[in-house]
Amino acid sequence: MANPSILILAGDGIGPEVMAEVKKIIGWYDAKRGITFDVSEDLVGGCAYDKHGTPLHDDTMAKAQEVDCVLLGAVGGPKYDNLDFSVKPERGLLRLRKEMDLYSNLRPAQCFDALADFSSLKKEVVAGLDIVIVRELTSGVYFGEPRGIFTEGNERVGINTQRYTESEIARVARSAFEMARRRNNKVCSMEKANVMESGILWRQVVQEIHDKEYPDVELSHMYADAGAMQLCRWPKQFDVIVTDNLFGDLLSDAAAMLTGSLGMLPSASLGAPMANGRPKALYEPVHGSAPDIAGQGKANPIACVLSFAMALRYSFDLGDEATRLEQAVEKVLAEGVRTADLMGPEGGTPVSTSAMGDAIVAAL
Amino acid sequence: MANPSILILAGDGIGPEVMAEVKKIIGWYDAKRGITFDVSEDLVGGCAYDKHGTPLHDDTMAKAQEVDCVLLGAVGGPKYDNLDFSVKPERGLLRLRKEMDLYSNLRPAQCFDALADFSSLKKEVVAGLDIVIVRELTSGVYFGEPRGIFTEGNERVGINTQRYTESEIARVARSAFEMARRRNNKVCSMEKANVMESGILWRQVVQEIHDKEYPDVELSHMYADAGAMQLCRWPKQFDVIVTDNLFGDLLSDAAAMLTGSLGMLPSASLGAPMANGRPKALYEPVHGSAPDIAGQGKANPIACVLSFAMALRYSFDLGDEATRLEQAVEKVLAEGVRTADLMGPEGGTPVSTSAMGDAIVAAL
Ligand SMILES: CC(C)[C@H](C(=O)O)[C@@H](O)C(=O)O
Ligand SMILES: CC(C)[C@H](C(=O)O)[C@@H](O)C(=O)O
Repeated sequence: MANPSILILAGDGIGPEVMAEVKKIIGWYDAKRGITFDVSEDLVGGCAYDKHGTPLHDDTMAKAQEVDCVLLGAVGGPKYDNLDFSVKPERGLLRLRKEMDLYSNLRPAQCFDALADFSSLKKEVVAGLDIVIVRELTSGVYFGEPRGIFTEGNERVGINTQRYTESEIARVARSAFEMARRRNNKVCSMEKANVMESGILWRQVVQEIHDKEYPDVELSHMYADAGAMQLCRWPKQFDVIVTDNLFGDLLSDAAAMLTGSLGMLPSASLGAPMANGRPKALYEPVHGSAPDIAGQGKANPIACVLSFAMALRYSFDLGDEATRLEQAVEKVLAEGVRTADLMGPEGGTPVSTSAMGDAIVAAL
Repeated sequence: MANPSILILAGDGIGPEVMAEVKKIIGWYDAKRGITFDVSEDLVGGCAYDKHGTPLHDDTMAKAQEVDCVLLGAVGGPKYDNLDFSVKPERGLLRLRKEMDLYSNLRPAQCFDALADFSSLKKEVVAGLDIVIVRELTSGVYFGEPRGIFTEGNERVGINTQRYTESEIARVARSAFEMARRRNNKVCSMEKANVMESGILWRQVVQEIHDKEYPDVELSHMYADAGAMQLCRWPKQFDVIVTDNLFGDLLSDAAAMLTGSLGMLPSASLGAPMANGRPKALYEPVHGSAPDIAGQGKANPIACVLSFAMALRYSFDLGDEATRLEQAVEKVLAEGVRTADLMGPEGGTPVSTSAMGDAIVAAL
């Protein structure tokens, strides 16, 4: 049987730096555990544009469709800010999500014990926080048509379309309910059903899937503005939150920031099962390309490392190995090893990206 | 000359209770300062539906168009949750906003000294916080067409349209720049220009209005997800935030919660000048109808009182009187007078809605 395959798209900014540490860990699994991945690499985002004039070459897209999963670093940077919309670095990422049909974006917002002081929230509000936001990732206003900037009379008009079909809502709802069953069995669905018809349909379909297929899971509904409030007030009231592409973008970023662990948070974007039974999958850190610190060896590779742990769990059915890797990260943090973003007011000397990766490998 | 006129729409839940305290203050201005308002009252929201089968009767709409300003309490409640979309309490409020063309919604997010401990954020993050979110209120996905739930093939599809014209963006941008000039001269505009064409147009128009008409104001742009993050991390970096209807809904609610002062926050929704030079205007607390505590004399009337202070300032050019009222509120808080929502862990006895109103009148 062929080895499981991974396509690495390190991307821009700190992407290549944090990905280098993941490669060390992949190497460790090969050498020490006899778990060998076929790893290939390619370009996405600004670096792909620099070489090919497009943020995602068709060949890269084709490769992404064939491998067992994609690991992505980050895309974007000030150099590309003035590019035309259609070739911006983000379009590469959005094309991967759309063409791989990765409809379920899992974003854990977890507060690491060693870092509870880092949050702008009070320690008691965030300590021990562990929630997952399940964000719909292939539809809604990100992809709806018509869209564009048009001229009407003598002025410009900007138009985007929020559009959700019943089946698009149903499949991401299922994904959230499945997740809840493996956790604390609670789902809160967020929309603006008081203002948007697409929100009404969202609420109805989530409720129907619940009643028919997951009556054992506790389900509640909340307007997204109230959801943003409640996330800031008392995030521990939630277990799994399911929401649409755009609300998920804002709410998951807010939730990530609340934990104080932004440089630590991984994500998984999953689609339908492939012929081999594995889901189409892309894993990436929640943080961005951080151009201000790129190339300086300062970046925290943990979010990317934990994204690989999610790959072990969701793509390769290696839950025990994922837990091993997560525990190695916790051990390293408990020992006080810190990249610059994790330095508290007590001071100390931050380690480099590479030293953090080495410490994690040593802890394995 | 006729007295300035106010239409009071107390609405549902705690709306009538908090509005009763504002009426005391209006009475005080009449008796003690010789400032007399012609006050009329009518129904909006669930109570209007109960009486007329619509959340806003045409006669009420017509009255709202004629008065100098509208004071609104709150709308909605569980009793109305299953009504058809078209007659839900919220539709009454949305109709007022749209037909009065109240395009500029000013939402101050301010942390009151006496309440800095109430925030879920650390005291140093919020103490002294004083920002204003200027939210576009009459367009975007709230009102764009086409909208609705349709059948396509054998499934339902929910559709809403985000739509902004150049002039809609320009006028709310001007309103934000004007506001900034009266404050710390800084505007941050938020959208998702990396994903939405309507966001690209938003960014361009805000920049153009800045360059042509307000080059003295410091302008920055931020993606709305990063904006949500930064509001949670270090809100004091902002002065004025300008954003669209939907982002403004989420971001202003998050910002309000961060201050710990939700029961304290007023808002103003302003439109174009009328024949008498006053802007079309509606003032309302940021909080909702709080059905759980309605009718118990527990509600905090301060948000509604401060909304009236905004009316004094923006509709009646009585900035000094507005400041007087705001100072009366601060004095009462400094004296330790608290409604139930403002009780700290030290305990003490909360005062009723009505006693809070009396204390504010006494402090005037
Ligand atoms: C980079 C951008 C297109 C993307 C998004 O808006 O989805 C990012 O913010 C994210 O959340 O992954
Ligand atoms: C009640 C509702 C329609 C309204 C909105 O979504 O605008 C509310 O949340 C607000 O922010 O004033």
